[in-house]
Amino acid sequence: MKAIGVTREGEGVELLEVDRPAPAEGEALVRTLRVGVDGTDHEVIAGSHGGSPQDSDYMILGHEAVGVVEDGNGSGLEAGQVVVPTVRRKPDGETNEYFRRGEPDMAPSGEYVERGIVGEHGFMAEYFTSPADTLVPIPDHLADQGMLVEPISIAEKANEHAFSTREPFEWRPESACVLGNGTLGLLTLWMLGREFDRTYCVGRRDRPDPTIDVMDELGATYVDSRETSVEEMPDAHEAVDYVFEATGYAPHAVQTVHALAPNGVGALLGIPGSWEFEIDGGALHEEIVLHNKCLIGTVNSHVKHFEAAVETLDAMPSWLLEDLVTTVATPETVDQAFEDDNDQIKAVVEFDTL
Amino acid sequence: MKAIGVTREGEGVELLEVDRPAPAEGEALVRTLRVGVDGTDHEVIAGSHGGSPQDSDYMILGHEAVGVVEDGNGSGLEAGQVVVPTVRRKPDGETNEYFRRGEPDMAPSGEYVERGIVGEHGFMAEYFTSPADTLVPIPDHLADQGMLVEPISIAEKANEHAFSTREPFEWRPESACVLGNGTLGLLTLWMLGREFDRTYCVGRRDRPDPTIDVMDELGATYVDSRETSVEEMPDAHEAVDYVFEATGYAPHAVQTVHALAPNGVGALLGIPGSWEFEIDGGALHEEIVLHNKCLIGTVNSHVKHFEAAVETLDAMPSWLLEDLVTTVATPETVDQAFEDDNDQIKAVVEFDTL
Repeated sequence: MKAIGVTREGEGVELLEVDRPAPAEGEALVRTLRVGVDGTDHEVIAGSHGGSPQDSDYMILGHEAVGVVEDGNGSGLEAGQVVVPTVRRKPDGETNEYFRRGEPDMAPSGEYVERGIVGEHGFMAEYFTSPADTLVPIPDHLADQGMLVEPISIAEKANEHAFSTREPFEWRPESACVLGNGTLGLLTLWMLGREFDRTYCVGRRDRPDPTIDVMDELGATYVDSRETSVEEMPDAHEAVDYVFEATGYAPHAVQTVHALAPNGVGALLGIPGSWEFEIDGGALHEEIVLHNKCLIGTVNSHVKHFEAAVETLDAMPSWLLEDLVTTVATPETVDQAFEDDNDQIKAVVEFDTL
Repeated sequence: MKAIGVTREGEGVELLEVDRPAPAEGEALVRTLRVGVDGTDHEVIAGSHGGSPQDSDYMILGHEAVGVVEDGNGSGLEAGQVVVPTVRRKPDGETNEYFRRGEPDMAPSGEYVERGIVGEHGFMAEYFTSPADTLVPIPDHLADQGMLVEPISIAEKANEHAFSTREPFEWRPESACVLGNGTLGLLTLWMLGREFDRTYCVGRRDRPDPTIDVMDELGATYVDSRETSVEEMPDAHEAVDYVFEATGYAPHAVQTVHALAPNGVGALLGIPGSWEFEIDGGALHEEIVLHNKCLIGTVNSHVKHFEAAVETLDAMPSWLLEDLVTTVATPETVDQAFEDDNDQIKAVVEFDTL
């Protein structure tokens, strides 16, 4: 079957011909419909994140997928069911407490592999297999957009964890700011627009730009970080109650604290590498304490977040989904999905249709 | 009446003779029993924190108090009731949303005054007045230790807020580390000993030392930060699930993240001033995200936390309370309560007994 991956020797993304996988006991065989591309894929390709499965000299990419069950294989799933796979799997097939309680997203490094990212093949192939309890059913009418369930689930978890930190008191938030104008940022911006009176989105682009068009359509205020740094938000616009960081730009962690209104919370999602720089650590510490602020990091997501994401996706307006998915490539034209192009928001590789 | 305070002209703590306050409508008159001294008092004396009431050229110190109602004044409190006052009051008598919902601890700067700290006289006098809803009743048998209710309430709030951040998943913490061996740190160490299998307490003292003796008695491990920095905790001892920072040492905010185990949370309580230094901001950001960590700041506390603190105080062993209260001064010997002495843990000024 056709698969999109990277090889140990090769450079960049390749169209590979590999064997169709056979489902083990408890697994279903899934026929892939669409697989999304995100920043993590680019990091995997660049070799700065993740790594191939141990017994393989290539790794199939892709962790944002939607497919249809081809063979339930006695797993409880019926052929024809549209499904979205979660990403984390037990390392070497050995379970641990995090997987046993259905919270693989809380497993520490070394206690998981991630399909398409580290240690296990991804979903960017004509078929993939997966344990039935890692395949989240979705309605047929969401099949075309199902690859967005995974990124939405990331936001569902981050929002859940962040908002839980404000549970002990009466939090009455009004404004939120998303750092980053990628697909995750824009999907989250729509989600936050349902709960917050005013939303902002930080990017580094000139108009005209398709991501700024989406912000405009959502009624959000675009903040150009080349002109207004994140810590200047309170002076330039307002101190915000919630910051959702989806850039991986290390200074944003500290700047987020200063962008927050009293009693605000910042969710960090980016994964920068080591980077030393000077901060006013005293002001940071004092501001967190004196105004009851919180910084929370979250990574990955589990089945419950995928299920919430299916409902969220179903509630999103069609114009938004059409505007976000700018590129639909085929396995043969896959390079289009990995171009670095400001006109591209979400690129997907389509293997088949329902 | 006698009062202990600071004057605009004077230097250090003075025994003042001032008028006995008269309770306004809704206020009770309280005869003071004991008032504790803490680091914030020293900051107020040094002028680095807080400020006198607007219409006064002196400020009475003291925010950790216990007293007995002398005159209920129709406020609903009966004469003879032992009470502990909360600290924050409405600024200029004007209420705001935070006070209306009983959460003055969540009010931002400018929306409150603090008795004995900023903008309003404290409790270190023979009598004080306070609105009835800011006076928390406690049992008579806790009268001698009631000045510890306020610092315990600070820990109650911090723990509540910190633990709420871990509610969205199954958190199974085993170890906790308190940064700081002052009274707040040691009280919290006892509290955490009830919930965590292993506790650590960080200080900068040589044995023999009364605070290290308390740690030993509590079964906690003493960590000398001159030998083992906080970020070295994982290598030297273990990565801990909870860090409670009560030092105000700015580098501890960042070091806390590296001391935490995956899915851990750090509560920050110290209030350092501005201090610039270099950090690995990328490693900090990445570690928060990849291991679902959280940093939460909390300040002050409200009536609910005081009520919880009364129960906590009642559960504390008498040896601990006896060991902690090392100094009982009188108004005439008040200088003893403000000495910088490693043999002193908690100093109190006693005005009267029940």
